[in-house]
Order: sequence, then C-alpha cells, then structure tokens
Amino acid sequence: MSKEGKADSSVSWQSIRDTMMARIRAQDYAPGELIPNEVDLAAEFGCARATVNRALRDLATSGFLDRRRKAGTRVREAPRRKATLAIPLTRADVIASGARYEYRLLERKLDTPPPLVREHLKLSGSERLLRVQSLHLADDVPHMFEDRWIVLDTVPDIEDVDLTETSANEWLVRQAPYTHGTMEFFAETAGARGQHLVCAPDDPVMTMIRVTWLEAAPITLVQQSYSPSHRMRLDL
Amino acid sequence: MSKEGKADSSVSWQSIRDTMMARIRAQDYAPGELIPNEVDLAAEFGCARATVNRALRDLATSGFLDRRRKAGTRVREAPRRKATLAIPLTRADVIASGARYEYRLLERKLDTPPPLVREHLKLSGSERLLRVQSLHLADDVPHMFEDRWIVLDTVPDIEDVDLTETSANEWLVRQAPYTHGTMEFFAETAGARGQHLVCAPDDPVMTMIRVTWLEAAPITLVQQSYSPSHRMRLDL
Repeated sequence: MSKEGKADSSVSWQSIRDTMMARIRAQDYAPGELIPNEVDLAAEFGCARATVNRALRDLATSGFLDRRRKAGTRVREAPRRKATLAIPLTRADVIASGARYEYRLLERKLDTPPPLVREHLKLSGSERLLRVQSLHLADDVPHMFEDRWIVLDTVPDIEDVDLTETSANEWLVRQAPYTHGTMEFFAETAGARGQHLVCAPDDPVMTMIRVTWLEAAPITLVQQSYSPSHRMRLDL
Repeated sequence: MSKEGKADSSVSWQSIRDTMMARIRAQDYAPGELIPNEVDLAAEFGCARATVNRALRDLATSGFLDRRRKAGTRVREAPRRKATLAIPLTRADVIASGARYEYRLLERKLDTPPPLVREHLKLSGSERLLRVQSLHLADDVPHMFEDRWIVLDTVPDIEDVDLTETSANEWLVRQAPYTHGTMEFFAETAGARGQHLVCAPDDPVMTMIRVTWLEAAPITLVQQSYSPSHRMRLDL
C-alpha cells in the first residue's frame, strides 16, 4: 500500500479502472451521480493523476462514465455500451468464416439512377452514374447480392478499373476513403433478387443500404441483400 | 511557422491529424506502409511528441492506422471504419424519433427454456428462468415484440420488480451491467408474432437475438422482432 498523497508508480490504470467499475456495479456511485474528481481519486489510490485519467477515459469509452469538461464526470444512467460494425470487405468476411470466396460481376453500365437513389445521394441533376451489380459467393453458394451506384464525379478513377476481377466494394474501400456515411438495415422479401440468391421471391432477406461521402461529395450508394440464412454477428 | 526541432505549442493535434489524413488519402503513405515514427513527425511538424501521439491515436480509433507497440504504426490496407451500435433503450429510441412510447407486458412466468436458448446461455441444467414477453409501441403502433429469458441465478433482484411498469430492458440496462455479449441480426417471417406486430405471418421482419454476460454468468437472452417497416439506422 502506498502512503496517501504519494504517487506510487506501481499502481496500474487497469487496477484503478477495475476498482471504479466494481464501485459502479455495486452502485457505490449511483447512476447519474458525480464521481470524485481526479485529484481526489489520485490521492485515494496513491497514484499520479494521469493514471486516474487513463482509467476514467477507458470507462468513458466503454460507456459507463460521461465525462464533461468543467461539469465533471458522472455515472451514466444507462450505460451506452457499443458494438462496432466495420464496413465489411465481403471477401475478408467470407474467408474469415472459413469458406472459399468468389465474386461475380453481373452487370456494369452507365445509367440514370431512380429518384430514390438520387435523393439519397443528394443529386439534383440527372447525371449518369456507374451502376454495378454483382454476386458474392461463399463455397459456391450465393452469399450476397450487391446493387451499387457510383458517382463518377467523385471517384472518376473507377471508370478504368476492371470490375470483373476486383469488386467495387474492395476497390472503393482501398482507394476512396470516405469521411462519413449512413447505413440502414431492414428486412424485406427477396423479390427478383431471389433468382441470384437462389431463394423464393417471398423469402425474407436482410438488406443493407449504405451511402458514403467524401466531405460534401457523394461517393456511392450500395444496396446489399444477404442470403436468407445469413446472420450478422456482432460482439458487445 | 516554427523552427524545425523546436516544439511549437500553437500546432494543434487536429491540424496534424488532418495533414496525416490527407497524406493517407493521397497515398503519400501507401496502404500497409509504415509511417514515420512519432519523434520524426514531431520534428517535422515542430510540435511536442505528445501532440503527434494524440493525432495518431485519433486516426487509429477512426480505423485508418494500425498502431502496434514496437512494430510501429502502419496505414491500414482496408480502413476499419466503425459504426457504433449502442444497446438500445427502446423507450429512449422511440422518444428520440418524436413518437410517444408505450410499453405493454404481455406475459411473465417462470419457465424451462427450450434447448436452443439453453445452448446460447450455456446452461447445462434444466433450471427455470424468468420469461418475459412484451410489446413496445410508438404512437400506439406496435414497434417491437420482445421475448426474453432472464437467468435468476445471475440477477435474482429482478424477481421483485414490477415489470408491468418498468420494462426488463430498462431495468437490466440500469441495474445489471454486463461485461460482454453478442448480437445477431437476421430476417425472418413474422409467424405468430404477426398477431402482436399487426402484420401477416408471412411478412418479413428483422429480428435481433442478444445474449449478455456478467463475466462467466449468463444474464439474459432476448429476441426482439421489429415491425416490418422498421429500419435500423447507423452513422459511419
């Protein structure tokens, strides 16, 4: 044990985090309550203030504490625990599942997008976009059907890419980093996509629509529909 | 402009982050490539090493850099941009959408879970769990049907809670913080739940199964099925 007020470099931030977490769990600090300030905690634990700071930052990142400059640090009423969902490189995901990955370009053409796609991409004119439809397979079984619109004004280089070899997904993830975007997930019937996903038109499939941006310029809108048996898994 | 090698406190970590991001975008640092070390970058930018460190940490959190102790910092081949998905407090989500929230307890009883639920919760015995079925509404319209199994050995206090007033979702989020968990999303037909969600049994719905743990002890398995019109939205 260190003497109070004397910083003990043997105290790890992890041990402080664990102690603070135990107190939050036990409601020694109640939900919504202000916890002691870093200086007082450093004195209590006999460590540097930076060590306490590191521990509290970790608990804030994990969603248990709400840290506000000046207003202090409070225990969150409802912890905002987060799951992370990376933009998938479909190839990497399929391979990670232990299956053999195959990609098939179904169609590639310049086309005028329907109003809903224009609206999502905030396009006012009627410019033509590159439309790419493709199928991604796992062990020869259809895994995901992709219908993508690419804004050539934003990523002109993709016009010269051979998309029979490299998927647009892969090329864009590597070559056209986005600044922000949105994703929507929902259930719908397979409809005509059942022909590619080898299921009945009435079968329920999970569809994701993702729109990405480079600052104010739209990059791409992609609609991916997964095979009916697909489950999207996330760790908390 | 600062003199090279002399730390200039007017250089912000944000400006360094932006410069480094621009270099990654322009592929001045190619995908997979090792970037210069912090000492060299600090000399180049004429700032403290801590400022460079803060900028690189931010780019690592955003998924553009891969930082490894000793092995150095590399540009990620495929940026792992992450969307965050907090465990939703359904009430808060509905209210945030501008709708009026209502919760209805449909059934509460002690019951023996089916094999699949036991398997997910890694229960070997045939102990009875608390089963809670409920409906969450937005502006009087069914929004989500919830079928939950709660392990009383892990959270015994919930037996005394009046679940007609407080949803199990809400009580558990506040009172039983978990250490880890998993989520699965998939599409399926509504089946008998159509009766609660006011849709046809054949309608496609998005279902989420979430299992949470307190260390090695299972807390709850919940299956939530959303109204067919629901879209789960995430920001990237």
